[in-house]
Order: sequence, then structure tokens, then C-alpha cells
Amino acid sequence: MTERLTIYDTTLRDGQQTQGVQFSVAEKIAIAEALDTLGVDYIEGGWPGANPTDSDFFDQRPETRATFTAFGMTKRAGRSAANDDVLAQVMNAKTPAVCLVGKSHDFHVTTALGITLEENLENIRASVAHMVASGREALFDAEHFFDGYKANAPYALECVLAAHEAGARWVVLCDTNGGTLPDEIHDITRAVIEAGIPGDNIGIHCHDDTGNAVAGSLAAIDAGARQVQGTLNGLGERCGNANLVSLIPTLLLKESYRSAFETGITEAALTTLTRVSRQVDDILNRVPLRSAPYVGASAFTHKAGLHASAILKDPTTYEHIPPGLVGNARIVPMSNQAGQSNLRRRLAEAGIEIEKGDARLGEILDEIKRREDEGYAYDGAQASFEILARRMLGQMPAFFEVKRYKVTVERRKNRYDRMVSLSEAVVVVKIGDDKKLSVSESMDETGADRGPVNALAKALGKDLGPYQPQIDDMRLVDFKVRITQGGTEAVTRVIIDSEDGQGRRWSTVGVSPNIVDASFEALLDAINWKLLRDGAMPERKPGVAAQ
Amino acid sequence: MTERLTIYDTTLRDGQQTQGVQFSVAEKIAIAEALDTLGVDYIEGGWPGANPTDSDFFDQRPETRATFTAFGMTKRAGRSAANDDVLAQVMNAKTPAVCLVGKSHDFHVTTALGITLEENLENIRASVAHMVASGREALFDAEHFFDGYKANAPYALECVLAAHEAGARWVVLCDTNGGTLPDEIHDITRAVIEAGIPGDNIGIHCHDDTGNAVAGSLAAIDAGARQVQGTLNGLGERCGNANLVSLIPTLLLKESYRSAFETGITEAALTTLTRVSRQVDDILNRVPLRSAPYVGASAFTHKAGLHASAILKDPTTYEHIPPGLVGNARIVPMSNQAGQSNLRRRLAEAGIEIEKGDARLGEILDEIKRREDEGYAYDGAQASFEILARRMLGQMPAFFEVKRYKVTVERRKNRYDRMVSLSEAVVVVKIGDDKKLSVSESMDETGADRGPVNALAKALGKDLGPYQPQIDDMRLVDFKVRITQGGTEAVTRVIIDSEDGQGRRWSTVGVSPNIVDASFEALLDAINWKLLRDGAMPERKPGVAAQ
Repeated sequence: MTERLTIYDTTLRDGQQTQGVQFSVAEKIAIAEALDTLGVDYIEGGWPGANPTDSDFFDQRPETRATFTAFGMTKRAGRSAANDDVLAQVMNAKTPAVCLVGKSHDFHVTTALGITLEENLENIRASVAHMVASGREALFDAEHFFDGYKANAPYALECVLAAHEAGARWVVLCDTNGGTLPDEIHDITRAVIEAGIPGDNIGIHCHDDTGNAVAGSLAAIDAGARQVQGTLNGLGERCGNANLVSLIPTLLLKESYRSAFETGITEAALTTLTRVSRQVDDILNRVPLRSAPYVGASAFTHKAGLHASAILKDPTTYEHIPPGLVGNARIVPMSNQAGQSNLRRRLAEAGIEIEKGDARLGEILDEIKRREDEGYAYDGAQASFEILARRMLGQMPAFFEVKRYKVTVERRKNRYDRMVSLSEAVVVVKIGDDKKLSVSESMDETGADRGPVNALAKALGKDLGPYQPQIDDMRLVDFKVRITQGGTEAVTRVIIDSEDGQGRRWSTVGVSPNIVDASFEALLDAINWKLLRDGAMPERKPGVAAQ
Repeated sequence: MTERLTIYDTTLRDGQQTQGVQFSVAEKIAIAEALDTLGVDYIEGGWPGANPTDSDFFDQRPETRATFTAFGMTKRAGRSAANDDVLAQVMNAKTPAVCLVGKSHDFHVTTALGITLEENLENIRASVAHMVASGREALFDAEHFFDGYKANAPYALECVLAAHEAGARWVVLCDTNGGTLPDEIHDITRAVIEAGIPGDNIGIHCHDDTGNAVAGSLAAIDAGARQVQGTLNGLGERCGNANLVSLIPTLLLKESYRSAFETGITEAALTTLTRVSRQVDDILNRVPLRSAPYVGASAFTHKAGLHASAILKDPTTYEHIPPGLVGNARIVPMSNQAGQSNLRRRLAEAGIEIEKGDARLGEILDEIKRREDEGYAYDGAQASFEILARRMLGQMPAFFEVKRYKVTVERRKNRYDRMVSLSEAVVVVKIGDDKKLSVSESMDETGADRGPVNALAKALGKDLGPYQPQIDDMRLVDFKVRITQGGTEAVTRVIIDSEDGQGRRWSTVGVSPNIVDASFEALLDAINWKLLRDGAMPERKPGVAAQ
């Protein structure tokens, strides 16, 4: 007999408090849709009235299976709930559920709000009653509940009992400052249940200030709480909220949770978790955390030589779950810790077969190591890895040779006395005995300057003679820059993702202290890989391609 | 009456398994010294014999107060401990302590090693006895202990009892695959104590594959374990090891740990924790995780408007500890969530006083919001924030005007038929009525091309006439690039950190689809801020400086 465990997402509200995060309406819609597909039970969309974006979002919010929730705060003292304009804006968002935060720590009531303890209780009661009377599902976020309980347990309990008795569907115990440890969360949650609020009406809201938000949430569930709040990728103020992307697989896959609970998330939806997590990072232009539990690129990456060879025998030797369950994948990367067997495996993936024991395996490993020391990263740039290996093996056709290029970046006043910038690139390429000189500038269709790399990419792709048909359906889809050493010694690593008309997507890498040159190197690899994949016929015999 | 809790660092061994991490000997020495200053009890330096770097490091290891430990594995079956060459290399490192990993999960013994359960017990006994007979402090890492206990508890216990009885000072319970939850870790650790190994001989070694490594470590300590293992910044294979940087402040500052235990880390040393954490990231060229518990740049950053105003009244309202205890600092950044009171506070920090209610506060907030939407980030670029605010307030001197610039990036064959690249920049600046034309190329002292931004920075700083004395002691110390939108619409944000002879350090930001132009904007702000701070006298009256 399983119990229902409710998952409440606050990425769009508490997650928005992350430093450097500013969602647009379109981004909020995209995240809400991803959350709904994943199968969370509640989506807290923001605070209507607090800022223009949140207000617009509630006007345009998508239809969801999940219960859409508006966030706000309990009414202020000295006026009725119906006459509180801040609360009115929240109610006017017309969501099926409303979550109001209120105080439960006596110090905050008297010091921060400057009202009496009884006035605060009345604000809670009246606000919850107002939500219920308006036909909304009512949630009460008990701010600073755990600190409040430790300071004045009877008063903290009075606050949550007031909300419960006024009809709140859920009373959410918040560790607002994130300093409460899991064992305390467990014991205090139990005390709330013993005080008369059933676990089925209790939610838990943890922050990660001691690195225990996930464990604290589990501890509250162990104690009886049946709603868990958190955010995608642990977004949130300061150190973030409890990370739902870590919690969800634990709740679905690990005992004792797996057999005790059911949630709204299916096993099929769980396999989208890695994609959802990376989609949020994409939207935020954040580099996904490699070491993230379950979904990180390193989560099932086996670097140690001993581990890697055991994994090849039986993955359960060093994996706590099969990575496919959460949509992740196993990686045995190249590095001096990995052996030649990994290299052979990766070469085979690129269609290159080399006998075990071939001396060239060692040479390729050494070259990869040397280049990784310079700043190259081949884990994420399989196409560049393949080109490098083929060059060393004499299996890379020399499709064309770049004789030289030149890029100019200018900024000056235009005739309207406004500063404008423009880049221009000239590329000289030799194909067989034919020399091609191409020039391009950096303007897009709207006349805006897209910069020197754009100009260079356009010039390079403009006239590659016999290869033009293969190049024309190629498109640059992403461009990532990382400075791999600080200061004036800065070395730039550029990773370019390309796509073609057949839906193939591939990544290439370039490294140089000169960012334009690093980009050019990655662009060249991208074109060469495409020509290779399309089986283009080189104008010269295979050999070491000149750059 | 406090008990001693032992802290064991394995950054240099298990931390080295992190994907993308490759320590040099010099880096290992620097980290060992930082760990020793911090006050950990054990430093596990690596596996002598496993790779050349680790062997060299043990030859050159620094003198430490902490117990230096070499890592290896128990002897293999079919030979004596004295005749195992792998073990011999570990012993030959001549460290006061040696930690050997061995199997305790029956499946791994029979499947991975392919030996009998009794042979494995004998390998453990003989290896530990060999360490003890050689006069070393012996530690036994029981690999996969928790999984082994769940599969075959009697055998797992036999393994750790064998090590204990053979004289191991510490038996370390390892959750190698990272899948064990804190409550299980607690219960199984208790079972080990009940089986006869005192807590004072038990260590805990957790991995973060479910996001519970810190909580799992605390759970083992709660159960009685008295050694805790982990790494700086949670480095380690897959999702990493338990993060000592999160654990240490919890153990020193939080009840029930604070009054129950003493460690080798003093309160004074604890204030270096943020610096140590960032130093490790520096060495690894990693961007420090903003949301890291205790030491992250966001850990005490208060973005929500309500939080920020409460913090101004009393920091304990939204901080679980005073940030100074761990060497961190409070930040109240600008953003649309922050109100005018934060803006006034931040302006005051820049020496700009504006009356409460001044309409210009709203204008500045709107402009910041508009620019943040374009990709600017003022949280981390206080100098650019100040310049923006002063411009809007008519308090920014127009020191000079850039009329135009032009940068050329070329790549061609040199006379030795090798591809070389070179950048050249021309900048035209007007100071008063004086026009200055400066040119610079991108070569450093060694003749290597440092790229277009370098050339531009040199040309801009080459001749600023009357301001030259103020500019000459300025130095670019860091350069960060972030693509704030993907694909062909990519917008580049550049953040430049500068330093001067007085030890001041400041950050400026520039944004453009054109990376050179974004860099130029940040460079200009950097120079303008320096001139402002040094009280340079403008050649013109204050006003809106042209760019």
C-alpha cells in the first residue's frame, strides 16, 4: 500500500531569486511546460504584482495538468484581507492554488514586522480564510519555521495550527535561512505532527546553506511530511533550494521511498530528467554542473583506471543506478587514467578500427594528453577528436587548405554621428590547384554587427567550390567560450556546435590565446567533419591536412 | 567533555579522479600546504607508483603537521604482502601512515577479483599486519562497504573486523558508489560498532551521487564514527566526494557538533576557508561555484527585496551564520528584485549620496534592468555600475573620447612556411582638443600572439596624454567571457578584472555580439574608473562621456 507524495516546484518563484537569474516571460513558459511534462504536482509561477515579468507571466501562463500556484504574503496588520492591495494582486492572478508566506518566528514578528504576536496570528488566520472563501486551494509557507521552533516552540506551533485550522490544504515548514540540519528537521517535523497537523497536510521547504537541503527534505518525509518543495537544478537564493533533480530519482528509485510512495512522475518521464535539467541551464546560459547527482555529465563517468576496467565487465560495480533510468549516459573518458581499451572503444564509435596493441594507440593518447594540457577538451568535442585521430592515422582527407585569413574589427562614428561597429573577413583557400578568395562582413539581415567570428564563418563557408553542396545545409547552433587560464596569460577555448539538414549535430574545439583564431580552428574542424561524414571526395590524396 | 573528531583529506588522491582534473606536482604541493594551514589531520597524497606525478610528489612532499598518508591497495592473492610489488611501491613512499583499499562486498571479491572470500580476508589481514610490522599507522578503506553490508552483512563485517584485529588504526567505511542514503549509513555504522569496532577506530567516506554525501557523513558521525573523509570543494570521481568545505563549518559551528567535538581546525583557520576553496578552483582553472554552501559568492547574497531590507536591519534575519566566520562576505546586489534602498546603499559604497525618494533612483534602476536584459551583469562589476550611475547623475568626468578603433587579426604563413597569427590595433582618442593615434600589436615578450583584445588594451593604454601616470600602474588580471545567448544570436559578455599599484582591484563589464567590442567597452570602463578613483582632472567639464 503506497502513499501519495506531492512534489511542488518553485523554480519560477524561489528559483528566480538566484543571483544572476532573470527569467523572461517566454523562459517561464518554457520551464512551466517542461515541469508539466515531467509530472510535478504544483508549479509555483511567481509573485503576481511583485514585478512586471511575473504579472505578465500569469496573464499568459500555459494550461497545465499541474496545479498552478501564485505566491504572495499574508495580509498586513491593520487592514482586512479583502482590503490588502498586495494580496489582491496575488488573488487576481486567478490560479487554482495560492501560497502565502507568513511569519512563524517570534523574533521576526516583533522585530522585522514590528507587530504583536497575536496580530501575526490573526493575519495568518484571516489570509488563509480569505483564500478558502475565494475558492482557492490554500497553502501557507511558514517562514523561518525551524528557527522559530527552536526559539519559541509554542508560538511557532500556534502559527502553523492557525493556518491549518483556517483551512490551509498544506502548511509548509520552511527552513528559510538553510541552517537547520537533517536530524533537527526530522524531530521538529514530528513535533508538528504530534501537535495535531497530519503529515498529509505538511510540506517541507529546505535551503542548501549547509549542503543538506536534499537530506533535510528526505528527513522531513521520513518524519511524515507528504509534500516536498524544491527547484530544478537547486536554483534559489544564496546556496539555492532543495534540488528536485536530485530528490526525484531518489524518491522514485531508492528504498525505502520507492515502495512506500507514489508520485505524479512516471518512469518514462524520469528518463527526461537529464534533458530537463540541461534545458534549464540552456535557458539560463549556465554551464551545466558536471558533478550534479544523477544528471551531471560526470555522474556516470569512470575515470579511475581500475573503475573503468571493472565497469567494462559489469556496470553495477561502480554505478549506483543504471544511467538510462534518468536519461543520462555512461562515459569512459580519455585521460591519462584511462587506458588504450577506452581509446579503442571511442575510435570504434567513430568508425575507426585499430588492433589491440597497435603502437599508434599510445601515440594518439599522448597527443590527446599534450593537447588537453594546452587547453583542448575532447570529452565534449567528439568531432575534433575524430579528426585528430584520423590525421594521426593518415585517414583524414585533405579537402582544402587555408592559405591565410584576415579579419578587421572597426568601430567608428557613422554619418549620423553614432558609434557603429563592423567586422570584415577575408579567407583564402586552396582546393586542389584552385585558389578561392572570399570576403564577408558581419552584418545580419537586420543590419546589426554580429562580430568577427560571424564574418569569418561566413567568408569560410562562402565558396568551397566542389564542396559547396555539403556546406550549404550546415548551421552554427552554439558557440561557447571558456578562458582556461586567468589574466594576461589567458588561453581561450572555443567549442562550436554545428547542425546540418539531416539533423546531425556535432561539436568541435579550438584553442588559442587569440579568440578569433581559436574560433577559426573550431570552424575548420566543423567543416572538415561534415565533409568527411558526407563522403565528400577530396581534390587531393589523403594525408595530413594543413591548417 | 568533548571528543576528538579526525578530519582526513583525500583531495590529492580521490579528488584527482575528478573529470578534467590533472594535478601537477607543484599544484599538489600548494594544495598540501593549504590543507596543512587549514588544520586537517591527515593528507592523503596519492598512490605512489600508480603514475609518475604521484611518485614524484611523494619524493618532493612538503613537511606537514598533518599525518601524510600514501594510498594503495591490499596485496593480491597468491603472494605475500612483502612480495607484492604494487604494495612495495606504496610502502617505499615512506609516509607515516598508509591507507590500503580492499574489498568487503562478496560480489566484488568473487566477480571482480575472482578469488575466494577467505583469500580476500587473508589479503586484508596480511596487508594490515605488514603495514603495522613496518611501523606505519595502518588504515583500511573498506570499498563498497555499505553495498556489501546490504548484500552479505556477516561477510562485510568479517572484512572490517579482520582489518581491525590485524591492527588497523582506522577502518574506513566507504560508500564507493555513492548510492547509500544517510539513514542507512547511520544504521550500518551503528551495526559495525555493535559488532565490536569502537567508533574511535571508524572512518566514513561518502560520495555525492544522490546529493547526500555531507548528510551521510554527519549521519555516520551521529552513529559514532570519529573520522570523516572528504575533499576540498567536493572534488572526486563522478559526482565527487563529501565536501570538506561544507562539512568543516557545520562541525565547528553547528550544534550538536560544536559542543560535542574538537578538531584540529581553529576558529582562526576557519576564516581562511573561503580563500582555500577559491585557491583550489584557481589552481584548477575552475569557476568557483557561486552557490557553494558557506564559501560561495552567493552564499550570503540577498537578492529578494524583502530579504535585502530585513538584512539591513539585522543580518540574522536571513543568515544562518555570520559570513566572516568562514572568511566570506555579505552581498546585496542590484537587480529588479532589489529596491531603491539597496541602490542607495550601493551608491553610498561608491561615495554617491542620493536622497531617499529622489526620482533619479527609479531611473537608474530602470536603466540597470534594461541593460541586464541585454546581457550586462552588474552584480559582479561594481566599477561599471558606478560609472553608469555617475553618467546618469551627471557626475562622471569626460576624461577622453574614443573617436574610433580598428583591430586586424591575420593568420598566414611566415617565411619558414609555418602558420602564424598576429593582431594589430589602432585607437584614436581625443583628450581635450588633442587627438592621439596609438597603435599596438599582440605579441608578448616571447613573441607569442596574445590576440586582438590584448593588442587593443595595449594601444588604448599607450598614450593617454596627461593621464598616463595614472594608467601606467594598471594591469589586466583576469578576463572572463560568457555567451549570454546561444547560437548565431550569441551575445558576448566580457568581464575584466584590473589591478593597480596600490593593490586596488576592480571589475568592469562590456556586452556586444562582437567580442572585441564587448572587451573594448569593459577596458574603457576600467580606465575611466581608475582615473576617477585617482582623482584625475578632466580636460573638459563633467558631462556624459562619449564612448
